[in-house]
Amino acid sequence: MPLASLRPRVVVIGCGFGGLEAVRALHDAPVDIVLLDRTNHHLFQPLLYQVATAGLSAPAIAAPVRHLFRRQGNVTTLLGEATRIDPAARQVHLKDGAALPYDHLVVAAGATHSYFGHDEWAAHAPGLKTLDDAFEIRRRVLLAFEAAEKEDDPARRAGWLTFVVIGGGPTGVEMAGTMAEIARHTLPGEFRRIDPAAAKVLLVEGSPRVLQAMPEDLSARAAALLEKLGVEVRTGARVTGIDARGLEVQPAQGEPYRIESRCIVWAAGVAASPLGHQLAEGTGATVDRAGRLVVEPDLSLPGHPEISVIGDLAAARSHVPGREPAPVPGVSPAAKQMGRCAAANLLQRLASRPTRPFRYRDYGNLATIGRNAGVVDLTTPLGHLHFSGYPAWLFWLFAHVYFLIGFRNRVVVLFDWATAYWSHNRYARVVTAIEPATVDR
Amino acid sequence: MPLASLRPRVVVIGCGFGGLEAVRALHDAPVDIVLLDRTNHHLFQPLLYQVATAGLSAPAIAAPVRHLFRRQGNVTTLLGEATRIDPAARQVHLKDGAALPYDHLVVAAGATHSYFGHDEWAAHAPGLKTLDDAFEIRRRVLLAFEAAEKEDDPARRAGWLTFVVIGGGPTGVEMAGTMAEIARHTLPGEFRRIDPAAAKVLLVEGSPRVLQAMPEDLSARAAALLEKLGVEVRTGARVTGIDARGLEVQPAQGEPYRIESRCIVWAAGVAASPLGHQLAEGTGATVDRAGRLVVEPDLSLPGHPEISVIGDLAAARSHVPGREPAPVPGVSPAAKQMGRCAAANLLQRLASRPTRPFRYRDYGNLATIGRNAGVVDLTTPLGHLHFSGYPAWLFWLFAHVYFLIGFRNRVVVLFDWATAYWSHNRYARVVTAIEPATVDR
Repeated sequence: MPLASLRPRVVVIGCGFGGLEAVRALHDAPVDIVLLDRTNHHLFQPLLYQVATAGLSAPAIAAPVRHLFRRQGNVTTLLGEATRIDPAARQVHLKDGAALPYDHLVVAAGATHSYFGHDEWAAHAPGLKTLDDAFEIRRRVLLAFEAAEKEDDPARRAGWLTFVVIGGGPTGVEMAGTMAEIARHTLPGEFRRIDPAAAKVLLVEGSPRVLQAMPEDLSARAAALLEKLGVEVRTGARVTGIDARGLEVQPAQGEPYRIESRCIVWAAGVAASPLGHQLAEGTGATVDRAGRLVVEPDLSLPGHPEISVIGDLAAARSHVPGREPAPVPGVSPAAKQMGRCAAANLLQRLASRPTRPFRYRDYGNLATIGRNAGVVDLTTPLGHLHFSGYPAWLFWLFAHVYFLIGFRNRVVVLFDWATAYWSHNRYARVVTAIEPATVDR
Repeated sequence: MPLASLRPRVVVIGCGFGGLEAVRALHDAPVDIVLLDRTNHHLFQPLLYQVATAGLSAPAIAAPVRHLFRRQGNVTTLLGEATRIDPAARQVHLKDGAALPYDHLVVAAGATHSYFGHDEWAAHAPGLKTLDDAFEIRRRVLLAFEAAEKEDDPARRAGWLTFVVIGGGPTGVEMAGTMAEIARHTLPGEFRRIDPAAAKVLLVEGSPRVLQAMPEDLSARAAALLEKLGVEVRTGARVTGIDARGLEVQPAQGEPYRIESRCIVWAAGVAASPLGHQLAEGTGATVDRAGRLVVEPDLSLPGHPEISVIGDLAAARSHVPGREPAPVPGVSPAAKQMGRCAAANLLQRLASRPTRPFRYRDYGNLATIGRNAGVVDLTTPLGHLHFSGYPAWLFWLFAHVYFLIGFRNRVVVLFDWATAYWSHNRYARVVTAIEPATVDR
């Protein structure tokens, strides 16, 4: 794939928050960028749970990558999957056999689910990283109610009407809260033989509290808000087994027990892209326990200044003068900031100037718990500001709409939420593949 | 599945336009209705091509069936597929093994694609009946441009950039026109190695003209509008073979030839649901060449007044006093009218009153040809009114929005079209499953 040019070629792998920002930041740079992604869209992951719970359609949170960069002339978008990086030959190998040469490489390949060594759980408890994951969860949630409506046996029906979310991070909390709302507010009145409001929604978390990245008071507040919505929050509960009909749980104290459930969602663990391990082998870099590459302060790989690693694939540290370097959390603002830093350092290198260490600016944390409720922990120059409930929910809503890509999507999402808010309906309740195995008896 | 009631049980198979109207028309009837569908949504099929061409998201044209009937207390919605009707036992057998007893049955199972005995063509030329079909076509259209961008060989690239629609009915005309718009207006500027505007879009029709249900002047006008958009219209061209790389065509005059194309859409033939043949065997009813059941004037099956057949599965005739009974076309207004007629006759039977023959009211035909152009043939009391171009397009647009189910969807579709109109963008350009086989070399 020769592009006739003498300008340095920058290959960016991945079009998540990190890759997108890196490419944008190189807008006026005298380089030729190849942006490689295995999907054709940038996904606004913080709202993916809304697609999974039928509140938003997929196009509302997915923007075609090509379209985003149509006016940035130095970008060529390619659809393809990077399977191997050859740092010696400076080439990225694609699944279809092609090889992309690079002068500079930005690896922003992100993360995937981790089942902590129990990959056999994946079939019974899908995670939420891609649109296909979201469709699969939507399908399971909606078809569980359909199967319950058909089921005569009370025990089996109870299994269809028990929904379990594993993992009490922001995604788990948002999923569980929304599932409770669907059961309590969206579906009642639509079934004739079951009462959807009688469905049980459980949030199972291994550690002692939900939203661990938040201060303790907000964790407690979130748990209380979830319980108020009808979610049973079980903290200190470690999952030891998952099968097609339920899961095994080991509580912090007492005997292990079983929960019968036909709809289990995995929101517990992430692991960095396999490209991390592959690149570590080729460069001698270190990976941490989560499979992330340990990077230099300027986000480059040790010994390979031409390779930057950003986002969920990077075990990066934030460098603030006069303080110990601090680990950077795996959140979207961090990925965006790393993208901008990597691009800036790339320009510094092109100009033979020294690079700068990455500094993470933490503006805080927020999560929503169903309609009208949320928790916010803002980091301000004057210290932390905590608030929860309705104001936090409004803040969460506008923050998310603000960061959505594209004016059109912002309007669509606001409209969708406004109608959902007033009607309690969730309009994207469309499932296509209805396999008999899922609604069997 | 016992429902404790002494009221007559009406089972309706299928929630397309016919089934939906039949159930609605029984709103206040003293019956218990079971509405059975193998999907969970009513699909507004006239706009399905917009989902296939990334102009609309799926939820914009699909309404959850349960939600539509949440306030109609005499309806129980069931998700399931009818595989067999037993007219002697008065039972509908479902794929999952259950059996639904009925006192009255309305069969509105619709139609599927027909490849005229060449089912092996299906893999290479998907048809457009369901949302999954639409996603598959969207995927093929968008990935063809992606593959072309990666392709170095000019002949292969030309194959990826040749799009063929087989069948010149309304769906084929709308698909071809929209594909030409995507190539000419949406994608230019987004690719670096190909010029999407150089893509070829061909509409292949076996008969001498497109839009055969329309008067000849409007067919000619539609063909001219298509050519203006950049579609090559080939009428009198019979398809004799389809494979993974293209198709074989036999023109009305001259030698057969081949078109190399990697993206072929089938909009040529429909066949009634297999339930038609199955029911004919069980009741001695006749099926016509398209697999449709020949029904009595009141839409019941001969000898089975308790079974009505409506929509695309019925070979019905329109009965106007003083005229020969005329065949009813397979269009959505006809299906809706049949639904209302079958429901009214069911009420007549319950009241031991005579049933009435079906009379089809033809309000006309319309089709759109891309942005700003359309053809309309209105049937008015004063005769036929023909118009085309921009006014026809506006008329088409508002007619379709008007008939969409639900206020919310109307607003969404209008908003989507308004933004698409001003920006030339198509926002729903999201594909998920990107199989290497499709973008291979």
